[in-house]
Amino acid sequence: MIKVGIVGGTGYTGVELLRLLARHPQVSLQCITSRKEAGRPVIDLFPNLRGYVDINYTDPADAGLADCDLVFYATPNGTAMQDVPELLAQGVRVIDLAADFRLHDPAVWKQWYGTPHSCPSLLADAVYGLPEINRERIRQARLVANPGCYATVVQLAALPLLEADVVDSRYLIADGKSGVSGAGRGAEVANLLAEAGDNFKAYKASGHRHLPEIRQSLQEATGRNIDLTFVPHLLPMIRGIHVTFYARLTAPDVDLQQLFQTRYQNEPFVDLLPPGSHPETRSVRGSNMCRIALHRPQGEETVVVLAVLDNLVKGAAGQAVQNMNLMYDWPETSGIDGIALLP
Amino acid sequence: MIKVGIVGGTGYTGVELLRLLARHPQVSLQCITSRKEAGRPVIDLFPNLRGYVDINYTDPADAGLADCDLVFYATPNGTAMQDVPELLAQGVRVIDLAADFRLHDPAVWKQWYGTPHSCPSLLADAVYGLPEINRERIRQARLVANPGCYATVVQLAALPLLEADVVDSRYLIADGKSGVSGAGRGAEVANLLAEAGDNFKAYKASGHRHLPEIRQSLQEATGRNIDLTFVPHLLPMIRGIHVTFYARLTAPDVDLQQLFQTRYQNEPFVDLLPPGSHPETRSVRGSNMCRIALHRPQGEETVVVLAVLDNLVKGAAGQAVQNMNLMYDWPETSGIDGIALLP
Amino acid sequence: MIKVGIVGGTGYTGVELLRLLARHPQVSLQCITSRKEAGRPVIDLFPNLRGYVDINYTDPADAGLADCDLVFYATPNGTAMQDVPELLAQGVRVIDLAADFRLHDPAVWKQWYGTPHSCPSLLADAVYGLPEINRERIRQARLVANPGCYATVVQLAALPLLEADVVDSRYLIADGKSGVSGAGRGAEVANLLAEAGDNFKAYKASGHRHLPEIRQSLQEATGRNIDLTFVPHLLPMIRGIHVTFYARLTAPDVDLQQLFQTRYQNEPFVDLLPPGSHPETRSVRGSNMCRIALHRPQGEETVVVLAVLDNLVKGAAGQAVQNMNLMYDWPETSGIDGIALLP
Amino acid sequence: MIKVGIVGGTGYTGVELLRLLARHPQVSLQCITSRKEAGRPVIDLFPNLRGYVDINYTDPADAGLADCDLVFYATPNGTAMQDVPELLAQGVRVIDLAADFRLHDPAVWKQWYGTPHSCPSLLADAVYGLPEINRERIRQARLVANPGCYATVVQLAALPLLEADVVDSRYLIADGKSGVSGAGRGAEVANLLAEAGDNFKAYKASGHRHLPEIRQSLQEATGRNIDLTFVPHLLPMIRGIHVTFYARLTAPDVDLQQLFQTRYQNEPFVDLLPPGSHPETRSVRGSNMCRIALHRPQGEETVVVLAVLDNLVKGAAGQAVQNMNLMYDWPETSGIDGIALLP
Repeated sequence: MIKVGIVGGTGYTGVELLRLLARHPQVSLQCITSRKEAGRPVIDLFPNLRGYVDINYTDPADAGLADCDLVFYATPNGTAMQDVPELLAQGVRVIDLAADFRLHDPAVWKQWYGTPHSCPSLLADAVYGLPEINRERIRQARLVANPGCYATVVQLAALPLLEADVVDSRYLIADGKSGVSGAGRGAEVANLLAEAGDNFKAYKASGHRHLPEIRQSLQEATGRNIDLTFVPHLLPMIRGIHVTFYARLTAPDVDLQQLFQTRYQNEPFVDLLPPGSHPETRSVRGSNMCRIALHRPQGEETVVVLAVLDNLVKGAAGQAVQNMNLMYDWPETSGIDGIALLP
Repeated sequence: MIKVGIVGGTGYTGVELLRLLARHPQVSLQCITSRKEAGRPVIDLFPNLRGYVDINYTDPADAGLADCDLVFYATPNGTAMQDVPELLAQGVRVIDLAADFRLHDPAVWKQWYGTPHSCPSLLADAVYGLPEINRERIRQARLVANPGCYATVVQLAALPLLEADVVDSRYLIADGKSGVSGAGRGAEVANLLAEAGDNFKAYKASGHRHLPEIRQSLQEATGRNIDLTFVPHLLPMIRGIHVTFYARLTAPDVDLQQLFQTRYQNEPFVDLLPPGSHPETRSVRGSNMCRIALHRPQGEETVVVLAVLDNLVKGAAGQAVQNMNLMYDWPETSGIDGIALLP
Repeated sequence: MIKVGIVGGTGYTGVELLRLLARHPQVSLQCITSRKEAGRPVIDLFPNLRGYVDINYTDPADAGLADCDLVFYATPNGTAMQDVPELLAQGVRVIDLAADFRLHDPAVWKQWYGTPHSCPSLLADAVYGLPEINRERIRQARLVANPGCYATVVQLAALPLLEADVVDSRYLIADGKSGVSGAGRGAEVANLLAEAGDNFKAYKASGHRHLPEIRQSLQEATGRNIDLTFVPHLLPMIRGIHVTFYARLTAPDVDLQQLFQTRYQNEPFVDLLPPGSHPETRSVRGSNMCRIALHRPQGEETVVVLAVLDNLVKGAAGQAVQNMNLMYDWPETSGIDGIALLP
Repeated sequence: MIKVGIVGGTGYTGVELLRLLARHPQVSLQCITSRKEAGRPVIDLFPNLRGYVDINYTDPADAGLADCDLVFYATPNGTAMQDVPELLAQGVRVIDLAADFRLHDPAVWKQWYGTPHSCPSLLADAVYGLPEINRERIRQARLVANPGCYATVVQLAALPLLEADVVDSRYLIADGKSGVSGAGRGAEVANLLAEAGDNFKAYKASGHRHLPEIRQSLQEATGRNIDLTFVPHLLPMIRGIHVTFYARLTAPDVDLQQLFQTRYQNEPFVDLLPPGSHPETRSVRGSNMCRIALHRPQGEETVVVLAVLDNLVKGAAGQAVQNMNLMYDWPETSGIDGIALLP
């Protein structure tokens, strides 16, 4: 049993962490912070938690974070990096669900996030929390940078192809579609039901912040230069990401199904579907699973990888719990083995 | 004023034709046929038409189609080709909204639609009804093959690039997303709200029937061999198609915005958005417009074309009316100049 | 041809007015104001209007409202009453789509809207713009108070019963359900797709601001005291209101269908469906029609009236245009005779 | 550990039973039957169960139902009554999720379901499975009639008021709204996303089959004659029921909040919200909870009870598991204590 705190608990990542941690057998939830909602019961905002979570929001200053064994940051980009150095110095381990520690190069951070990084020396320490790549390093980490939602699914779709060097890494396309919970719980006109409902559009087609993260991680994992075009789109629904990944085969004889099967056979949260399948986002709604299927249209040289996950679970809070399980040497599926809600 | 009939009027294409034709100044609606609903008022099925359409469904045998000047076929694939030869012989002009006359090669028809074509000799006569390519031929046509919804939007996205020969035509990718009305009004489990709602998936990733149509038309229009990967997806909404089209620039210095501007400047139903835009499906909901925007992420060699239309209007019934307007030398926008419903 | 201005044009009522007025044969749109968006093209916010509306937003101070013949106020409650006295004094006629002039008693205004009324002397002048009650007074009005969306549909459902004195007016129940566009285009967390989508709830069950308006109008129209319980609910969709109205019959032998038929036979925008029908909100999507059906479950003494309208059309902008048509003695359906978009 | 079978496992009730039973600590799933899908893996239809359910559908004749301790019927109305007598004779206990054993009077069955009842003698034996009324009888039951979804929520909303005799039982109104999963997984045009999405309507306003069930149960529980008007409506979403229940107070001084608090204080699956609350369907999505809030608009004599549940859980499969838990004297919350998925 460890003592856990959550910083920034009024967003969707925060409530999803609460849903998962409330049922986790080895976690005692010490605090959840919010400046704006300090003193208010969590269940006022999230009545689904009535009977399961009986604490109030606390101001971060009063939360006693230093007494926790582990703190999750579910804050906007740029917040965690203000606090984390001190917490680490006090011996607290940290999982940051925002982008603060994902990029190794502070110059790239500044380019995409607009501000200088406040603790660049920690960037080398932070472990990128994608268990399918970094499982052993995560076990030892004191600071885990939980991957972005799109970044997780694009990498899981692309990794076997790039690791095996069977596609042209200089012309990769990832067409991403996300439910609107990925945009967070902020009050934005563009995310109103009356705007985003019954509607579909691309956004940030000229450059999304998950792109440098994906590129960096794929290059490190494969040792190859990566040219990736990534276009995200907004789905008129709440949870779920679907990525359609296109690459040009350089080894046309490869058995793609076998390649992915071998790569992911021991992964508890990557599920390769039978050939010809089309994974649905609802098949992972509320679960930590990523499901993948492969196509090679007309038997030609383009491979199409279809991959889905729940952006709030495997794309955020669930993956954070998976990382925690690794850090404390608990069963990797502890607390995140729920079945997706369908229909 | 011409006399118009509709064959197969209980599906979404049929009711959309009714919505448009009911307000068209030069059309007198003679009949709408349905074997199953013969004798029943149209407004029983489609109460939005109360006060605008006061006829009943008729059995095709009793409909007096030969007395019409023009007949629209809004029937399942394979139906129109049974009747059209006789109608044409009687001097009736025909616009087929199904696939029966879109492909020139009966062997390709058989490969993708599973049955032999019943009147292959008419295939050469039929004019492919995409006004942006075939305007002049449509004016003279006695038989128009109205394009598929995906086919329309993919071609409008790709044409300027291929005609100007500025992209590699051997590696084109069209990632399509369609609202569920594109699947028709048939009672299919997969299209239930409880199945397709709050969900997203690809379908027919290994080959969709609009692919040969797109390939044929682009090859004819450009004289080039086309290798296109087309993956359609099902959106949890009713109307609207969005295509994200990716191509590799072979002429990196081309001014893409200017290229499209020039190509479409006289087109009443193609709207090029300012650079950096992201067209939304709702901006064309109920209208005959196709809106297009261009991106070149990170200034690299991949061009991304974003294009939207309403699959039931510019993707079906509206384009059919546009073709009718051309065939009778009326203003091309007659009856289809409504404003999209937003929000 | 009259000169028309719109004050407050960035919300849903404003864009819907634009959609309708852009095609109205007797209207010349002079200006649309927005402090925040002054100088920006309207089509930047609402690309569905590209090609139909080519003006920019203006600051109200620069808009030349006094030169208009008629000004529509599509502003938040409490705004119009600041400006309207001066405009009226300058001979401009006004239709206010907010609540400022709906209630006759400034004390009731203060009770429900929280601030004193700034021009109580105008309240007696203002004509309540429900044509089905006040058609002749509207023709002469210089200031029309356009009814609330719920208020319109509840009154149309209840009027025939109360006018004919066939129900117990002391125990009326109106269970209202509205699409989320009724809540406006403001950036509110509660109206995000991720909050209001795939969800249903009541709101303001203890008292909604349309209640005093409904009560006042029904009492005036019928001369009876009205006890009405009105509970609104939020639908996970964009457009449409459905009211289920329950009353206890005091004259059990009345022919309800005939009663409504007679009452509404000359109304262009009230459509009584055949007995046993269930009106759908989509049957009026984008149109100015209100559709009504009657039920008397198990033949007992409770009458159930089902009524639908589009909250942005007959519930707001469409009804405002209907009122304008009356004020200028144009055909009442001018510019608002479009067919609902289904599916 | 008991051996459990499910008859009729291809509908939404079936898959929801599987989701719950797969994680239930005392259940061994023996078989799930489907004539149509016999031989096919369950996970072909419901990929969310991959890794959790590894059996195939069986033909009912081969399923070995007689070897089970308990069989759930998740079949259409009228199926269970054909088989249940024989199963009971073999010592198998049965929970029927359809309507076959809910009504005590075979004449009422015939009136509402259209066919004679095939085993009327069992109707007296069957225990109506609403634990909040019949907990002790359910423990001993060999045949449980699991309540309808609407019936459950209407009764939980109304019971405290009727038991305490504080409202006029001759004029009760229940305005129900249900997500479309309540209509099942059958291929019906009316339930297509393109029909039921972005739309709202009442249905069966003149009489829904849950009405006699509600009336019978409330009359038995309270000894009073009940006049109830029940109008169901179809929500454009998948899961969730909301009932707005209206009654006229005869004891205006009653403390309603206290009354409900006392009645439900020991109920694990009824959650009374603080005064002034508005329960949301999403707060129970996927959970077995029913949440209730009370209003008394303007302090007058009408009480408004707002109540929500998930029609597939507390309205069907979850309540069936709750009944099983009672029948086997396990903790009542076993296997059904999951947290609702929000957002």
